[in-house]
Amino acid sequence: MRGFPDTEFERRTQRCQTLMAERDIDAILVCTEPEVRYFTGFHTPFWQSPTRPWFTVVPSTGKPIAVIPGIGAASMSATWIDDVRTWSSPHPEDDGVSLLTDCLREVAGADGRIGLPMGPETHVRMPLDDLDRLRSSLNGFTDATDIIRSLRMIKSEAEINKHSHICTIVSNAFDELPNLVSTGMTERQAFSAFRAEILRQGADEVPYLVGATGPGGIGDIIRQPSDRLIEPGDLLIFDTGSTFDGYFSDFDRNFAFTHAAQDAKDAYRAVWDATEAGFEAVRPGATTTTVFEAMNTVLKANGSLGNDVGRMGHGLGMQVTEWPSHTASDNTVIEENMVLTLEPGLLWAPGKAMVHEENLVVRADGAEFLSRRAAPELPII
Amino acid sequence: MRGFPDTEFERRTQRCQTLMAERDIDAILVCTEPEVRYFTGFHTPFWQSPTRPWFTVVPSTGKPIAVIPGIGAASMSATWIDDVRTWSSPHPEDDGVSLLTDCLREVAGADGRIGLPMGPETHVRMPLDDLDRLRSSLNGFTDATDIIRSLRMIKSEAEINKHSHICTIVSNAFDELPNLVSTGMTERQAFSAFRAEILRQGADEVPYLVGATGPGGIGDIIRQPSDRLIEPGDLLIFDTGSTFDGYFSDFDRNFAFTHAAQDAKDAYRAVWDATEAGFEAVRPGATTTTVFEAMNTVLKANGSLGNDVGRMGHGLGMQVTEWPSHTASDNTVIEENMVLTLEPGLLWAPGKAMVHEENLVVRADGAEFLSRRAAPELPII
Repeated sequence: MRGFPDTEFERRTQRCQTLMAERDIDAILVCTEPEVRYFTGFHTPFWQSPTRPWFTVVPSTGKPIAVIPGIGAASMSATWIDDVRTWSSPHPEDDGVSLLTDCLREVAGADGRIGLPMGPETHVRMPLDDLDRLRSSLNGFTDATDIIRSLRMIKSEAEINKHSHICTIVSNAFDELPNLVSTGMTERQAFSAFRAEILRQGADEVPYLVGATGPGGIGDIIRQPSDRLIEPGDLLIFDTGSTFDGYFSDFDRNFAFTHAAQDAKDAYRAVWDATEAGFEAVRPGATTTTVFEAMNTVLKANGSLGNDVGRMGHGLGMQVTEWPSHTASDNTVIEENMVLTLEPGLLWAPGKAMVHEENLVVRADGAEFLSRRAAPELPII
Repeated sequence: MRGFPDTEFERRTQRCQTLMAERDIDAILVCTEPEVRYFTGFHTPFWQSPTRPWFTVVPSTGKPIAVIPGIGAASMSATWIDDVRTWSSPHPEDDGVSLLTDCLREVAGADGRIGLPMGPETHVRMPLDDLDRLRSSLNGFTDATDIIRSLRMIKSEAEINKHSHICTIVSNAFDELPNLVSTGMTERQAFSAFRAEILRQGADEVPYLVGATGPGGIGDIIRQPSDRLIEPGDLLIFDTGSTFDGYFSDFDRNFAFTHAAQDAKDAYRAVWDATEAGFEAVRPGATTTTVFEAMNTVLKANGSLGNDVGRMGHGLGMQVTEWPSHTASDNTVIEENMVLTLEPGLLWAPGKAMVHEENLVVRADGAEFLSRRAAPELPII
């Protein structure tokens, strides 16, 4: 289940090249971790270091070309990529800029159109001064967000298997949670115990873990743990994006300790029911907006005071969130083999939020859960 | 030891404003995780999600201003920041661009000079299309890399304490390694055991863990683990950047299993001696280049065939690597309270690399180790 056969990367590259031809684009440049990994299979936490830029160029035919610091030569050469061009980095005077310029000119031609993701959910991971130099020597870039987005939104069976595996691991860890946390622990101790359990169950990493506890409700659901002691009557939310082989799960669970008020139980049931409605709405040909509306209708009927999240779920993949978003205006057409989250949330009282999240894959006849479905009633520890 | 008192952020902001005044800069815009955290204290793994941009504006006087998605309002308001401006995100049509434009115009004036880090080791974390719109409506930015760099390179005692704590934790975990790994395990099992031990010893997270094993030597030192079985005669390198309260350690250790050849032992001793030479060379007023030369002289005398790393150590902080770099041309003057790594490495035979790394803080009279110094001879498990 580790890595991919070369055919996976061939298929990704060929799909990209088909879309490039339709758009009359001669080469695409990418430079962020998921983009480079998508085309090459190059997988390392070395991206944590901001020192060195890394580039991959997708030509109109043939394999992608890696233009990278020398420190990555051995690892990149172990992927399916044949053409690995390196420079000694860090080298602030010319950190790959001229090597990349030459490569792009060679691949795209002097007057070629070069695509670069410049739109929503993208950024260019290189110093802006260097990017400006690159742009002026190449007569600019054309936005290629739509191409990368449409490729990455549709997963292969091999990718879906990795998602399914990490979702099962995290589901197992959540099932253990009542045995791991209790009143009298600090939030920090509870976080630490849960993180260790996710790893023990087989996750590679837990890059994203947020959560909070609060007396009878929780205001801020993206918090880091504090030394607050968990008390009877508290609500607890944990939300984790964990990985297996570089693919994410992203779902949360809510619990109460010893007892819960009826309005908290009702809020839990409301978001659980909203998730059901979203799940029923997901099928090829529906849109992210119809899915949003299905969930929002349930939340409104249950007296939602709104929410600050800005959407009710999103794509999932090599990043904890990817395109598209379930919003009132997103309108992305849902297709088979998308991997999505459903994440309805509401404010059920001022300063009290409740958010549910599940992960699913879109099949020809509708959605299939990847996460093990949460209990329909608020679990009490 | 968690977080910082408000005075820490006041001091950072005032130092920044002093440098801004010297450069005639009216406001500075930052938008990456460490930059925003540096000025605000806002600390969340939510940055894993590429969907939403986050901005902080440092005015010429007074506290920084946060311009962020609504989902972060509660967490940001819990920091020392008073002025938190939010929009509902994701909103691709205008994801904070007009709110940020208004804020920068208000703070810097219509003709004000606005600084943005645009140089080495920086990038702008927002879609390039949005950045272009922002630049054109503001008459561009001026590079502020030198200001942010000079601030972040010098650590406060509170920051140094966090570095010291995580370095002790990871040193303890490395000391346990001979009890955790053995021949017959896979690389992946060894990684997993070591990661769990670092967390058990008290680290918050292990964002960076690379390593490899190899018969009598290791070629690629930034690798992810494989299913390769560890065998007698193997060398093992683990290199980890682990965190406590958002501050990194970054050092490695090398081991052999059951026995090692004399040339491997000699290579180990060469990089150990080079580290000693680098350590002796570090003092306020020296430069990163004199430190590089001190290490390189030892490596050359020991028959180094070169290395692909491109430098022999670097700054350490809220990121696993930060400015400056120990290279032949970096020439950064070393100052008191810098936190640095020493990372001499050599190829001792074709395809066989040996790299040592230690962490230190610069004091008035020289360097102090933060990592527990590696054994002078290659440890054999």
